[in-house]
Amino acid sequence: MPPATEAEALAQAIAADLPISRHLGIRVEAADRSAVVLTAPLAENRNHKGTAFGGSLSAIATLAAWAWCWLLCRELGIAAQVVVQDSTIVYARPLAVDIRARCAAPAPQAVQRFLAAYRRSGRGRLTLAVEIGDAAGVAVRFTGRFVAEAVAGARA
Amino acid sequence: MPPATEAEALAQAIAADLPISRHLGIRVEAADRSAVVLTAPLAENRNHKGTAFGGSLSAIATLAAWAWCWLLCRELGIAAQVVVQDSTIVYARPLAVDIRARCAAPAPQAVQRFLAAYRRSGRGRLTLAVEIGDAAGVAVRFTGRFVAEAVAGARA
Repeated sequence: MPPATEAEALAQAIAADLPISRHLGIRVEAADRSAVVLTAPLAENRNHKGTAFGGSLSAIATLAAWAWCWLLCRELGIAAQVVVQDSTIVYARPLAVDIRARCAAPAPQAVQRFLAAYRRSGRGRLTLAVEIGDAAGVAVRFTGRFVAEAVAGARA
Repeated sequence: MPPATEAEALAQAIAADLPISRHLGIRVEAADRSAVVLTAPLAENRNHKGTAFGGSLSAIATLAAWAWCWLLCRELGIAAQVVVQDSTIVYARPLAVDIRARCAAPAPQAVQRFLAAYRRSGRGRLTLAVEIGDAAGVAVRFTGRFVAEAVAGARA
């Protein structure tokens, strides 16, 4: 069945292509141009202290940002593959709740530059930020650079 | 049964405390003061391109560095909890083989500073580097800062 919403399309793509999403219990809570929100249970992603393991937080943040870029390409009708180039993550304090990673849209100018570069060269870059927090606010901040590359000559 | 080697002790600690290690198929290939080497099958950690997913690489690199610091504390007889503070990872090129993450020992001076700070304040920091590669060389470089904190007043 074709996906009815962007969130369903994203959930299908993630489930089909990224087995880690199943292993870590990742779900798509929301997905549109304003933000992608992924969740995962603490139980599957805890560390020795019973809080969220940094490696899980990093993986889920990476996936949330990748997903935002994937959705952007989908909405723009761009036949591109999205990969992460590099990232930095800061764990300001431990998280003892289920994980909820939110990748917000970057500035419109950044998206315009991305699209212009992609149309010119078949390759566009975006820097994306992801926050993970709890009721007390943001606890983890991720920033990653992603590149979308045209698939086999396609530059639609 | 008590672990016979450092690698077995680490494998037991990881399996007991970090469910992600089971989910991603992580194994301890080697663990001593010179290096910790963790492996994981590509199949469980692949992306849409059939290469290793950046989020998995980041999680496994984080775990390898955490493990090195955990082993150090164990060998020094330090009753500390080790957590990651921040990290940066660069994905220079895709990896299409099983994942093998190697955290090498930092400079001896860094370990001495770590130990001095821990004995003074119950808190020591270490910067650790992890490399992931294939037959062609290193493809992914991770650097993370880790902190070991004395457990409930213990500063042995």
